[in-house]
Amino acid sequence: MTASVHILGISGSLRRASHNSGLLRAASKVLPEGVTLETFDLSALPMFNADDLATGEPDSVRKLKSRIGSADALLVATPEYNYSIPGVLKNAIDWVSRPPKQSPLNGKPLAMMGAGGMMGTVRAQQHLRQILLHNDLLLLNKPELYVARSWEKFDMEGNLTDEATLQAVRTLVTSLAAWTRRLRGERSEAQLPHPAVASN
Amino acid sequence: MTASVHILGISGSLRRASHNSGLLRAASKVLPEGVTLETFDLSALPMFNADDLATGEPDSVRKLKSRIGSADALLVATPEYNYSIPGVLKNAIDWVSRPPKQSPLNGKPLAMMGAGGMMGTVRAQQHLRQILLHNDLLLLNKPELYVARSWEKFDMEGNLTDEATLQAVRTLVTSLAAWTRRLRGERSEAQLPHPAVASN
Amino acid sequence: MTASVHILGISGSLRRASHNSGLLRAASKVLPEGVTLETFDLSALPMFNADDLATGEPDSVRKLKSRIGSADALLVATPEYNYSIPGVLKNAIDWVSRPPKQSPLNGKPLAMMGAGGMMGTVRAQQHLRQILLHNDLLLLNKPELYVARSWEKFDMEGNLTDEATLQAVRTLVTSLAAWTRRLRGERSEAQLPHPAVASN
Amino acid sequence: MTASVHILGISGSLRRASHNSGLLRAASKVLPEGVTLETFDLSALPMFNADDLATGEPDSVRKLKSRIGSADALLVATPEYNYSIPGVLKNAIDWVSRPPKQSPLNGKPLAMMGAGGMMGTVRAQQHLRQILLHNDLLLLNKPELYVARSWEKFDMEGNLTDEATLQAVRTLVTSLAAWTRRLRGERSEAQLPHPAVASN
Repeated sequence: MTASVHILGISGSLRRASHNSGLLRAASKVLPEGVTLETFDLSALPMFNADDLATGEPDSVRKLKSRIGSADALLVATPEYNYSIPGVLKNAIDWVSRPPKQSPLNGKPLAMMGAGGMMGTVRAQQHLRQILLHNDLLLLNKPELYVARSWEKFDMEGNLTDEATLQAVRTLVTSLAAWTRRLRGERSEAQLPHPAVASN
Repeated sequence: MTASVHILGISGSLRRASHNSGLLRAASKVLPEGVTLETFDLSALPMFNADDLATGEPDSVRKLKSRIGSADALLVATPEYNYSIPGVLKNAIDWVSRPPKQSPLNGKPLAMMGAGGMMGTVRAQQHLRQILLHNDLLLLNKPELYVARSWEKFDMEGNLTDEATLQAVRTLVTSLAAWTRRLRGERSEAQLPHPAVASN
Repeated sequence: MTASVHILGISGSLRRASHNSGLLRAASKVLPEGVTLETFDLSALPMFNADDLATGEPDSVRKLKSRIGSADALLVATPEYNYSIPGVLKNAIDWVSRPPKQSPLNGKPLAMMGAGGMMGTVRAQQHLRQILLHNDLLLLNKPELYVARSWEKFDMEGNLTDEATLQAVRTLVTSLAAWTRRLRGERSEAQLPHPAVASN
Repeated sequence: MTASVHILGISGSLRRASHNSGLLRAASKVLPEGVTLETFDLSALPMFNADDLATGEPDSVRKLKSRIGSADALLVATPEYNYSIPGVLKNAIDWVSRPPKQSPLNGKPLAMMGAGGMMGTVRAQQHLRQILLHNDLLLLNKPELYVARSWEKFDMEGNLTDEATLQAVRTLVTSLAAWTRRLRGERSEAQLPHPAVASN
């Protein structure tokens, strides 16, 4: 028997019908046994200004840090804007990564995915991996999940309708849970066979 | 005789005593003949949300786009947060790069510099170069300017006090003006000898 | 009337039926008026060893440097191996970039393209752009050319058979010639309308 | 009691007095109890040519694959050439990563370090991390080890003479051994306190 894995999901898009928020909703529907998922909405976070740290963190930042601290693992769904992650997502990372030694990000398992464009956010994810090295996030390598041509795979409300992508999301979440358990020293379970890259 | 070059300077930090804002103030003091510089403060920009585009751009975004459109070249001073540019700076780029075909960024000459850390923002600048490819910014290659150990080179108000760095800023601005003129087809002037990388 | 533009083409693959070498052969068939193209085969270059510089450069390196020096612009076709450019191509750059101040690469206009995989070598090209900053190559920004699913677009001998890709190659070469002329101060010609990214 | 950890060390430089080869020699002198290190010399590897795979791998490649397969973890010391890893090192990765599903690289723990320049190879290491994602290498995040101004820290034969750097190498090797053990499910030992970034 294994302990449960609680995942905090974060979408890099604030748009109501965002495909990336839709990926997180899809993940919540295909959670394996023993895995739970909550999401956090970044829209309340102000722009990072180091001067504000002197007077204490904004409530929204404190709340996000608390949710990260309580989670066993993180799952980020990011769009690609200008060949990188959105400023909105980077700004959230700027807040919660400080002060460096007390950040709840440190040593946390994390998986990423993204929907959009012809290449499924590959450049955004490359940047995100480099960014998260700073706080020693323990990134899941595989599967990589790039949802290209997302306009063919989501409905007008941003709900995922493509079955192959849904299965890829399921594999990603299952792999993240196995990675989290491996890192905390539980006996590794039977590894799922999975495609190393799901470029849908 | 050559036409003047008007530069718009943008700092990626909102902090009052920011060293990067200080680099722009330093630039304004060493402008060569025929070059002018104004700066734009990013603190008024809201978080990018694509839904907001339906109801029109925020005033601050419209104003920034207008200033970019009027400038002959851009000069960005960026700190490095988490091995990348700040969310604040990325968010501004997310706004002004849209819609892609009408963005005032397209085809604009740009130089970058940065102050901070032990490596002077080299990773942030690498990301920024990749990001700006999206809108066809015409980036100055050399000199690269990385101001490491900036705490030794600025005073408490964020004013640059280091003479070697000031000269490096002067060379950068002069090179940006020459690059801008070359791109618009003016006869190239005598090229300054300069170090390819000024890693102060 | 404009002066001619002579392009040196380099393929990052040594494979006989390489799709990337095929892209260069395709380019040679769609050269605009006033543009010439020769190619250089990297297979004779030895592995870079700085100790060898003491006894002089290998003949193959000297020859490559000479061809680069004589060219007005470079056109690189790169596969993507392990999310980057091939060691073969990087090794050639390691040789010809030295000594830094006398390298024929310095200030040379260059365009890149690549064939392979599901994303058309986008990660290899990102690395290549960062690498070439070192020697101040003047990189063409647009169009970006990523030939994905190349197995559907080339025959068994590595000859390009896809018409849309051929037109994208033509646009790239034409844009490189215009960029080269702009940089040397010729009156810019009518700019071609072109898609900013040709992700075939 | 814990099982031993056998590390294979690879230097990205072929130069006789290479500082990076020197880092590996230094590592061999500060191995913690239960850790062994051998090194592999890349100079015998030919240039990668996919056509050669048809007739079988070169002996040098087969030997390198075998050594990787026998190792519990890898330790790479890389110089930075042109803001990336050397072609020599990339070429070795191109060989041993194929065929993808049978590569001995897959799932192997790995740590990296590098000596050279003013920034201690930070750009080379960023590329190396992106490259190694392809084969699911399990990269140690921290400490990051960037040996800047290496000419002050090594003697003419490339032997490390700087005590602070030697201690940073010791911490890196110890952390790699702990990471390897954690990944194979051994009880984690007392974690060393260590600086997250050793930028000497």
